[in-house]
Parts: sequence; C-alpha cells; structure tokens
Amino acid sequence: MVGGGRGAFIGAVHRIAAAIDQQIELVCGAFSSSPEKSKASGEDLFLPADRVYGSYEEMILKEKELPEDVRMDFISIVTPNHVHFGPAKMALENGFHVVCDKPMTFSVEEARMLVKLVEETGLIFALTHNYTGYPMVKQARDMIKAGDIGKVRKVVVEYPQGWLATKLEDSDQKQASWRTDPSKSGLGGAMGDIGTHAENLAEYMTGLQIESVCADLTSFVPGRRLDDDANILLRFAGGAKGVLHCSQIAVGEENGLNIRVWGETGGLEWHQQEPNTLIVKNLEGPATYYRTGVGELSAAAQAAQRVPAGHPEGYLEAFANIYKNFAHCVQARLAGKEPDPLYTDFPDVHDGLRGMVFVERVVQNSQSDDKWTTI
Amino acid sequence: MVGGGRGAFIGAVHRIAAAIDQQIELVCGAFSSSPEKSKASGEDLFLPADRVYGSYEEMILKEKELPEDVRMDFISIVTPNHVHFGPAKMALENGFHVVCDKPMTFSVEEARMLVKLVEETGLIFALTHNYTGYPMVKQARDMIKAGDIGKVRKVVVEYPQGWLATKLEDSDQKQASWRTDPSKSGLGGAMGDIGTHAENLAEYMTGLQIESVCADLTSFVPGRRLDDDANILLRFAGGAKGVLHCSQIAVGEENGLNIRVWGETGGLEWHQQEPNTLIVKNLEGPATYYRTGVGELSAAAQAAQRVPAGHPEGYLEAFANIYKNFAHCVQARLAGKEPDPLYTDFPDVHDGLRGMVFVERVVQNSQSDDKWTTI
Amino acid sequence: MVGGGRGAFIGAVHRIAAAIDQQIELVCGAFSSSPEKSKASGEDLFLPADRVYGSYEEMILKEKELPEDVRMDFISIVTPNHVHFGPAKMALENGFHVVCDKPMTFSVEEARMLVKLVEETGLIFALTHNYTGYPMVKQARDMIKAGDIGKVRKVVVEYPQGWLATKLEDSDQKQASWRTDPSKSGLGGAMGDIGTHAENLAEYMTGLQIESVCADLTSFVPGRRLDDDANILLRFAGGAKGVLHCSQIAVGEENGLNIRVWGETGGLEWHQQEPNTLIVKNLEGPATYYRTGVGELSAAAQAAQRVPAGHPEGYLEAFANIYKNFAHCVQARLAGKEPDPLYTDFPDVHDGLRGMVFVERVVQNSQSDDKWTTI
Amino acid sequence: MVGGGRGAFIGAVHRIAAAIDQQIELVCGAFSSSPEKSKASGEDLFLPADRVYGSYEEMILKEKELPEDVRMDFISIVTPNHVHFGPAKMALENGFHVVCDKPMTFSVEEARMLVKLVEETGLIFALTHNYTGYPMVKQARDMIKAGDIGKVRKVVVEYPQGWLATKLEDSDQKQASWRTDPSKSGLGGAMGDIGTHAENLAEYMTGLQIESVCADLTSFVPGRRLDDDANILLRFAGGAKGVLHCSQIAVGEENGLNIRVWGETGGLEWHQQEPNTLIVKNLEGPATYYRTGVGELSAAAQAAQRVPAGHPEGYLEAFANIYKNFAHCVQARLAGKEPDPLYTDFPDVHDGLRGMVFVERVVQNSQSDDKWTTI
Repeated sequence: MVGGGRGAFIGAVHRIAAAIDQQIELVCGAFSSSPEKSKASGEDLFLPADRVYGSYEEMILKEKELPEDVRMDFISIVTPNHVHFGPAKMALENGFHVVCDKPMTFSVEEARMLVKLVEETGLIFALTHNYTGYPMVKQARDMIKAGDIGKVRKVVVEYPQGWLATKLEDSDQKQASWRTDPSKSGLGGAMGDIGTHAENLAEYMTGLQIESVCADLTSFVPGRRLDDDANILLRFAGGAKGVLHCSQIAVGEENGLNIRVWGETGGLEWHQQEPNTLIVKNLEGPATYYRTGVGELSAAAQAAQRVPAGHPEGYLEAFANIYKNFAHCVQARLAGKEPDPLYTDFPDVHDGLRGMVFVERVVQNSQSDDKWTTI
Repeated sequence: MVGGGRGAFIGAVHRIAAAIDQQIELVCGAFSSSPEKSKASGEDLFLPADRVYGSYEEMILKEKELPEDVRMDFISIVTPNHVHFGPAKMALENGFHVVCDKPMTFSVEEARMLVKLVEETGLIFALTHNYTGYPMVKQARDMIKAGDIGKVRKVVVEYPQGWLATKLEDSDQKQASWRTDPSKSGLGGAMGDIGTHAENLAEYMTGLQIESVCADLTSFVPGRRLDDDANILLRFAGGAKGVLHCSQIAVGEENGLNIRVWGETGGLEWHQQEPNTLIVKNLEGPATYYRTGVGELSAAAQAAQRVPAGHPEGYLEAFANIYKNFAHCVQARLAGKEPDPLYTDFPDVHDGLRGMVFVERVVQNSQSDDKWTTI
Repeated sequence: MVGGGRGAFIGAVHRIAAAIDQQIELVCGAFSSSPEKSKASGEDLFLPADRVYGSYEEMILKEKELPEDVRMDFISIVTPNHVHFGPAKMALENGFHVVCDKPMTFSVEEARMLVKLVEETGLIFALTHNYTGYPMVKQARDMIKAGDIGKVRKVVVEYPQGWLATKLEDSDQKQASWRTDPSKSGLGGAMGDIGTHAENLAEYMTGLQIESVCADLTSFVPGRRLDDDANILLRFAGGAKGVLHCSQIAVGEENGLNIRVWGETGGLEWHQQEPNTLIVKNLEGPATYYRTGVGELSAAAQAAQRVPAGHPEGYLEAFANIYKNFAHCVQARLAGKEPDPLYTDFPDVHDGLRGMVFVERVVQNSQSDDKWTTI
Repeated sequence: MVGGGRGAFIGAVHRIAAAIDQQIELVCGAFSSSPEKSKASGEDLFLPADRVYGSYEEMILKEKELPEDVRMDFISIVTPNHVHFGPAKMALENGFHVVCDKPMTFSVEEARMLVKLVEETGLIFALTHNYTGYPMVKQARDMIKAGDIGKVRKVVVEYPQGWLATKLEDSDQKQASWRTDPSKSGLGGAMGDIGTHAENLAEYMTGLQIESVCADLTSFVPGRRLDDDANILLRFAGGAKGVLHCSQIAVGEENGLNIRVWGETGGLEWHQQEPNTLIVKNLEGPATYYRTGVGELSAAAQAAQRVPAGHPEGYLEAFANIYKNFAHCVQARLAGKEPDPLYTDFPDVHDGLRGMVFVERVVQNSQSDDKWTTI
C-alpha cells in the first residue's frame, strides 16, 4: 500500500475493502512521505518493521527482491491525485499489478502513459470507481444491456455534497486541503473528486459513452481555486441526452450520488445512500422496487452480494467488490488460468483515462463560449 | 367559465378548486366551442339553461347586461393555450376579473398585451401556477426570504413526466393532441406545459429571477413536432446557478415536480408528490423534516392549510389556494377595501409574461450555437 | 348541519368534503348549542338567517314544514359523541337521511337503537369512517377480495398520534377537552376517537370480522380519565391473527394510521400519511408500488380519484368520497332509482354499531383478567 | 470457529465481521460435524491442515496444547442452537473466551449453567445480538439514557420476515430445516430466531427490562412444529407498555426489524433496513433525521462507524462492531489492562439468559389462559 497512513481516510477504506473477503492480506506498505509516520502506521497495522518502507520507490525495489511467495502481489495506491502516477508507473515497470484510487492521475498526459504501460506489460490494473461495485448498479447495467428499458433516451446523474460549503481548506482538514489545491488535485475540484464518479457511473450503467458536454463550473466559496460546483448538459453517443450536476457546496448533502435512466419502454432509478434498492419503471403499470437478495437478479448482481435480503450492504462492501474481482483475476493469473468472466468486472485503466479526458473537456468548455465540446 | 366541458381535465380541477372553500359559486359558462356540448355540460353542472352560453363572446356580453348581484364576478379560462388570449382580453375590456390557466398565452406578444390591459384596467388577474399554492412551498419561500439558508447559490428544479413517452397524440387522447400541436400550444411542448411550472416555482421560491439560459431541447418521439424533453442550465440574477430539466418521455414518472435550493448556510428540498414535507438542511447537524401543521410555520404557510398535521392535503387544495386568495381580493374590491396582504399571494399577469418569455428564449437558445441567451 | 360552528374542527371538514364534488349544497344549520353562536356561524357561511336555527330540534321540525324542493335532503351530525344520538334519532323519525360522525353514539345501547330505526325507516345512513374513502384502501380491499394475496393470515393496524402527550385538556383546547371527558366521549378515549378508525379500516380492507380481543389500555397522562394508549391482540374470524395499537401520547406522531395485511401468497401495506401509494408484496419477487392513477386499478379505486397520477389527493378528498357516494344514493332515491353499486360503498349504521361494541369489549377486556373477550 | 462450513450462512458472516477491522485472524476451526467437510472448508479458508479439526472437542484440546502466541485466543460458535452449549461450556472450562451466536442455548437450564461458568471463570463472553452494533441504535440508547425523550412510555418493536411463508423445510433448505425443528431450535421457532433479537433490541435501547408478557403464538404453515408468528403485549419495569410482533410468514418482508420508542417528551424511530437514519421526534416541532456521521453523535455511535456521512454502513459492519469490541476487551485482557469502557459494549451471557427466559415465558403464556406471565 502506498499512502493511507494515520489520519488518512481512503487508505483505511481500501484496507477494509481488501480484508472483507479474506482473499487479500496486507503484507507491506509505504504509508506516508514521512518515514517516521510510515513506520508508526505500519505498527498500527501489525506489520513487521522490515516490510514498512520510507517511500514507494524503496518498497517496490525491495519487495521485488523478495521470494515470490513472500513478496507483495500487487500495489494499492491511495495517495492524493498528484502521487498516483509515480508509484503506478514504477509498479507496472517492475511487474506488479496495481489498484489505484481515482481520478487516475494528475493530468491526461499521465493517464495516456499509464494506458500504454498497462497495454505493454499486460499487468492487471483496477481503478477504484467503487460505486459500480454495488449489486443494484450491476443489476441496472444488466437490465439496460438486456433491453429491459429499450433504447436509452435520457440520463440524469447527480452527486451533491455539502462538506466544502465553507472554506474548510483554511483549517487543518487534510481531505479538504489537497482536494482544493490545483497542484495536488489537477484541473478539477469537485469535478475530479466526485464528477468523475458520476461520469463513470452513467457510462457504466448505460453502456453509452458521453460524446459532448456543455458545462458551467463555479467556485462559490470565495478564494477557492478549483470548482466546487458543476452543472453539465450531456449528449451521449447514439442520441441520448442528459444532465450531470455535482457539488461540494450543497449544504446538508452527504454523499448524494443518484442516477435515473429512461429508455423508450422503461426507467431505472438508483440512490447511493439507499443502495440496496433499484426502482424499475415501465410504460403501463406501477413501479417495482428491486432489492438486493430478492427474486431473480442478474448473475453479476448476485455475485456482488454477501448476505440475504434485508441485511443491508453498504459502501465498504461495494468497495470490496472491486478488490474481490481484482483478487480473483490476480489469483487466476498466478494460477495460469483464465478468470471467470463474472469477476473481470472492475474499472480499469481505460476508465481512468476517460475520466481524465472528461474533466479536461468539461473545464475547457466551461471556460469557453463554445456551447458543446466533444470528448 | 370558458372551456372545461365534458371530457376536459383541467376545467373540472378549476371547478373543484373554486368550490372547496365555498367562497365561489359557478353561475355561468361557455364550456365548449360546440354550443350543444356547452349546453350538455351546463346541465351536468346544475346550471340554469339561460346562463349556459354557446361562446365566450356571448357569455361576456350577456353577463355584462345582468344586474350586478346576479352577473358573474370573474371569468375562469380553462381552454387550450391558443384560446387564452381572446377571452382574457375581452373579459378585461368588459370589466371582468380573470383567472387564467397557464401558460398565459400563445405568444409573447399576446402576453405583453394582456399585461398592458391589466395595468390599464386595474382588474385582478390570477394565473393558475397552482404549485405555488402548497403550504410548504410558501414556507420555503418565506424561509429563504428570511435568510434562513443564506444567500442562494444553487437551484435544481425538475419536472419529469412519462405520459407522452409514446405517440399518444395519434390516438384520440385530447390532452395529448393539443399539447403536441404547435398551432395550439405555441412554441413550447413540454416547455410550455410543465417547464413553465418549474421556472415559476424556482423564481417564486427563491425570489430570484433567471437571467440567462443554456438549453438542449429534444423531441424524442418520432414525428412529434414540439419538444418533449428539455435540459437547461440556469444563471440567476445575483450569481446563483442552477439546472432545470423536464420531460414528458421519462417513462414511469407521474408528475415529478421537485426542487432543491442550497444557500450559503442551508438547503431546502421539496417534492410535489409528497407535498406536505419540506426538508430543511443546515451546515452542521442533521436535516429537519418540516411538515404542514407541525410546529411554527410562516403565516402564509399556515393560511394555506385547512386541516391539522397528518391529514394530507394535495393538489386540489393547492389549486384551491389560488382561488381562495383570488376570491379574497375580489371580495375586498367589491367591498371597497384593501385585501389582507396574506391573501394577495397568487401568480399574476407578470408571472404569465415571464413564463412566455422564458419559453421563447429557451427555444431560441436550443436552436442556436450560442451558449447563453439572456431572458 | 348539526354542530360545526366557529372554532370547531370536523364541521369545516364535513363542509369542504360535501362541497368538493358540487353535488351537495349547505342549506341550513344548527351550528351550536348557543343560538347566538349558531347565527354568527350561519352568516360566515352565507346562509339566509331564516335557515339558521338555535337547536337541531327546531331545525328538523321547521325544515320538515318547508316545500320538498326547498327543505334539506339530509342532516350532517358533526357534534361531540354524546350529541350524536339525539339528532340522528329525530332526523330519522322525521324522514331525513343522516350523515353522522364517528364513533356513532355515546353507548352501545344508543347504537342498537339507531340500527333499529334505520332498518324500520329505510332511510340512508352514512358514518364518516373517512379513511375507507381513499382510492388505495379500496384497491387493497378489492385485491384481497379477489384473492390476490391468498387467505389472510396476519393484520397489523396502528394509529399513533402525539397531540395528547401532555394534559392539553387543562388548557382551553376544545378538541382535547371533550375527547378526554367520559361524559362526552363515552367509554373510550383514544379507543373511541381513533381506535375505531383502525378497527373499521382493518375489517373493511380484509372483509374479515374481529372475533376476539386481548387488550391493554393505559392512561399515561396523570389525571386523565380515559385511555390515551391501547395495545390489543386480535383474532379474526377464519383464523387470521393481528395487532391493533393506537395512541394519543406517541410524541411527534401526526396521524399515523397504517395497515399491513399478509396472506398466504402476498402482502399489502398502506400508510394514511402517504395515501396514494399501496405496496404490494408477493412470495417470489420484489414489491410493486401501486399508485393512484397508475395502471389498472379496481373500479372502486378509480371511481374514488379525481385527478391523474402524480397529483396527490388527500384527506379531504377521501372524506369527500363518503359524501359523494352518499349523495349519489340520496339522488337515486329521490329519482326513484337504484343507485349504481359502485357508489353504495360507504360505512353505515352497522359499521357504527360494530365500532361501539368493539370499544366496549376492549375496555371490558382491559379491565379484566380474562385473556380473550369475544366481540 | 465451530461450525460455519460450506453451505452455512452465519459462519461466513462471522468470518467477515471478524475480518473487517483486521484485529482478528482466523487460525483454526472445526467447521462441520463431518471431518471431511470440515477439512474442505478449512482449505477454502487458506488454513493449514493441522489447524482444521474434526470436532470442537478435538479443537479445544489440541489448541490448548499449543504455545500461547500460536493457539487461538477465543472460540466462535456458529452452529445451530442445540450445538451452542457443548462447545461454549468446554471452551470456558479450558480457558478460552467465547463468541456465541444467539439464541444462546437450547434451554434455559443450559443458559443458567453458562452464566455460572462465565462468572466462575471470569472469561469474556460475547453473544452476537448484532443489531445492537449499529451506530444509530447506540445513539438512540444514549439519547434515552440522557433523558432526551423523557421517561419511556411506549415501545413498539417488530420483526417481520416472509421467507418461511411456505413449508420451505420440506425442501433441502438447510437454514429452514433446523430452525423449524424443535430438537435443534428449542422451544421457539420465530421467537427464538428473531423474537429474541427484537426483545434484546428493545431492552438494549430503552435500558428497561420486560416484566411481563401476554402472547399469541401461531404456526400458520400446516405441519410446522414451531411458531412462525407471534403477537405479544409487553409491560416493562417502571410502567412502560409495548407491543412486540414478529413473523416469518409475512410474505414479501425481508428482515424488517423496526423499533419505535415514545417517552414523555420525545420519540425515536429506527429501521434496520435503513440503519443509518434515526428519526427523532419532540413535543413541539418537526422531526429531525439523525444520520450516521452527521453532526454531534454520542461517543458510542461515533466509535461504531467507519466511514463518513453518506457512505452507508450495513449489517456486516454492525456485526463487526460486536467483534471489534470483543477483540478490544480480549486484547486488553492479554495486555493485563482494563479495556476502554467505550468498547465493553456488547451483548453478554446475561443477555443470552434473558433471551432464553423470554422465549420460555412467551411460549408458556401463549399456551395458557393466563393473561400475563412474569419474566
């Protein structure tokens, strides 16, 4: 693991997500750019001192020297955006598979280089667009693919949060400070942090690519250097239209990632904060409330749940599904076998590049007088 | 009453809305362009034969001749859009107050003429943007006005419906056929029918005017001549931003008018289909679910409800609130008194003009390459 | 109308409910036991002075003398419980149909006498158990009758309110004072006021009669003389079991009448505060959310709604459905015709007697050591 | 671990719950009464063959011989009810701490013996009444303890499920067959399986003990030997009253454990299927919707959550909170320290005994003509 030392948020999430299914063991880490902090974090995690490193470079080089059955099988990158590319590149170049947090890189250029490296090395790369790990998101995707709602006409995806409604970055809040700092986040503020999740969810669920965007980005909080709010019109390949809006100044909102998709003969609605329900609509009659564990769900939806109906699964389990599928593929690779297709379903380096291009184009459009910008 | 004969929808709504509070009595009508149908409708409504007219012209002229305590006090216009202007103009010119359905007219030009006529005659004119009649909409407006959520930053208003997802106008469905016919509806399809409600609600609740729009209108159903779907970016006077999307092809949606407003220190959320709840959000703690009849609500909210908490009031009661307030103002005028300010709160001819201009600008923007069009 | 003067609650509800469908006109009233107050109330309601009476006795006798096309067709009794029997009896004895608020009488004995009178006179008697007026309650009843959920096994009906959680009757609150006064309410406090609604709803929806009860009634507020809380086990004819609990000390509850019914092959769930939804469950798949106006509903459900899907109807409309059906039957009687069976559906004098017996038995059981008391 | 081999449900839940926080490592197991099956299950779980045992007796005896830093620290018992007592007793007698699934034993007598053994040995014993592990359940408990809703008056706790609405035990369904078999489940069917959860939740949240019960138990499915439905009136020490109803024949219900508590000045409402929300009601104003991670929650509620607001946590995380707290106490014991009181909060052997007595008394009452049976 790179990053995720004391005080970090997403590192602990990755560790829990990896632990849930007992297929992955944390064996080493470079948890902080400060060697002391890295060491202390390693102790918290019951790691032997000689597997806790002062830098990711040291970790990758030293682990590579260890016997195959001892050394790490892959690397998890849970640092701020500007420290994704370095460890990802070095891991790939040294033969390690990679799990990387999103957005994938600091710039589109870095993203393109990672795509190239993954293609050259053939290594396995997972990007933790974790919201696609929910069973009902997979169910929705499979229903759309099966034609259950007909040709998609309209998509409304939204992601309101309120935690940056004040200038939190002026306090010591670590999460706020790097996310609002262009030198660490990249071009996008809310766009990079949560807009990419919304984009990824919309494309994953519908199977359609966003073709062009018309965007209005704002920094509402005085002095903030990156967008904290975005309203975007979407046009999809094939003629569907849509809206994506996200915000980190929507006071009182927690983590409101929601999506609605309407096709020619049906509609689907999913809310991340109540993730075990998928509302299914049709032309004639009343809506049906699909639930994890109830009735006949798609194979992928079933594979993504762990407990029976009525036992709510949440964010950590969805996150764990990325790790579970990734681990399955790594195990298959180690065993020299083809993975079960059911478990090859996780966001990869191409999704990462799409997200980076999406942010770039949205920012460009918002700064221009052009109505539409192609992606 | 003009229009609202057998088979009509909104005419019956107007009659119920006018009857609920027992302040208004239906005394005459020209219910159809067919004199026979008008007559039959009048009988259904227990009207004496001599007060049922073959045309609105006949009605206005004959009623004018009746003694003051017998003749109608005002006229309700419940016809399709292209037959709003004629009776409204004639009523005003002959000294009758007017209640008119929305959108106010067929064209912006007609709307401007009505504004002028109302200003010249001093008569009372109510436009039935009925959704502003809900108690919790008034509560939200009063909270924003009082500064409870701080300066408004973002508004998301939406109005999905699904009833026109197929080419219903090819059947005999009367509601569908005139709404999709440019010669009866005017420039806007979904925009005129429901987009104006969304626009009116956003402006009413926030007290802010929409300054410019960037729109993407679509006719998804093959062969349809007017828009059946709209995605619009909004910029409000004073810096707030927003999104308005509405649709009549959103399969499975009933009448989903919803609005969320976020300010610097709070947020509000209201859903028309569950109208007795207003969700109030703030910077620090959990959300509070305001309910009609519970606790301290604003004077206007209280005046707009009829029964105690937990006894749901709905669409008809909200509609009736337009009539109740209008009736109060007419009664005050008849009595030569100033109306209680609490009851002067209903949409008027200026709101009607704004709606017409909004539709016009949205359609223009959607057809152009300009990013923003000023309203 | 008897009762319902200034300051009353349910009188105004009755007037609105009667007005909504424009089939009933208020022509006279004895609005208060104080002639002055009655007179003032009559003026508020635009009634001519000579049709406003000082007592119900005077009203019934004088109206009877008026020509048939002028005099009232029926009487509405909206007084506290102890003043139901007198006017009902006298109206029936003088040939007037009756609408009476619930619970029907002060005692079971009075209730039996009314049943006898109605049977002897053949007059039409409606009891305003208004909650059965909701479209989705009728839909549920019709689905159960049609066998859609199989043989009923379990019923949970509940009615929590919180408005009497403190000793409100010590203030001037008129609604609280008579409801908690045994000399005006009768044997039951919460039981009579809302428990009878719950009992009536359960029997109406399932078509099953409650056969025996095991009850635990409490007066939680010190000094209160009647029950303000009830927990009751139910056994229905045919083997179904159930629970009825109601309360007026459930702090923060508004008017939470809810019912769930499970049969051998399905289940139904309805909540009065969101009355336009009926949740339908089955053995295998996910639940369907039936909605007023959506898809194929039963004839009775359709007849009970006035506006299309998504336009919420509420308490007043449900109440109005009692009046609408009653008016239809009175009109048919006046015309010498059989009423359309669709409109004969309203609670009657037999339901009123059942409610009175239910309260009596529940109170008896709660005061005894017997486990079960037969109804 | 004792039990939890291939095909089991709750064993996997225990393993995930133990793994989530990375404080507990599975080191050995006797996963099945069949040694072959136990062995195969151990391989699935990456355990070395010499730590997979053919019986719990073998496991306890052999593990005891291992060096302290190698041998298991505690035992988890995840077998059907009739195989709880044996391994629990033997583990305690041999110095191992115990985590045991609920209901604690087959009979009250066994439960009393375990209480005695735990008291004598001083070992740590956790019972997985997992629903008390939810953050908002702890928040509710802490609010009641702090007097936020005043003295408790009424409790309604319910637990409807529908999965046993048909005679599932006649198929091969392993979960159904032992739960409906008196020789494996004990006296209670639904009562033991889910009624004890409801009882435990009510007592945990309110801090009040149920003093007497009046019960009506039913086996609705023909041929079933244990209750599949229960309706129970409750009287709590101190005067509160309540209702507990649970069912496994409530068609379409998933896992509907819900509780509402009303006190003199407030009310609380929690639903297991949407566990991150706690509805807080009060005498005067509207309800507040407390949410995990939002605003100021109690120390115990905060300690029980892992991710920020809006990232739903679910059943597995609540279950894990039992293990987390238990592990903390075991670690403190191993370190010779007092545990942080925040982490001593998990159900123990006394809760287990109470549950067993509750089931016994409810069954007795249901079979008798006595109205009330003391617990």
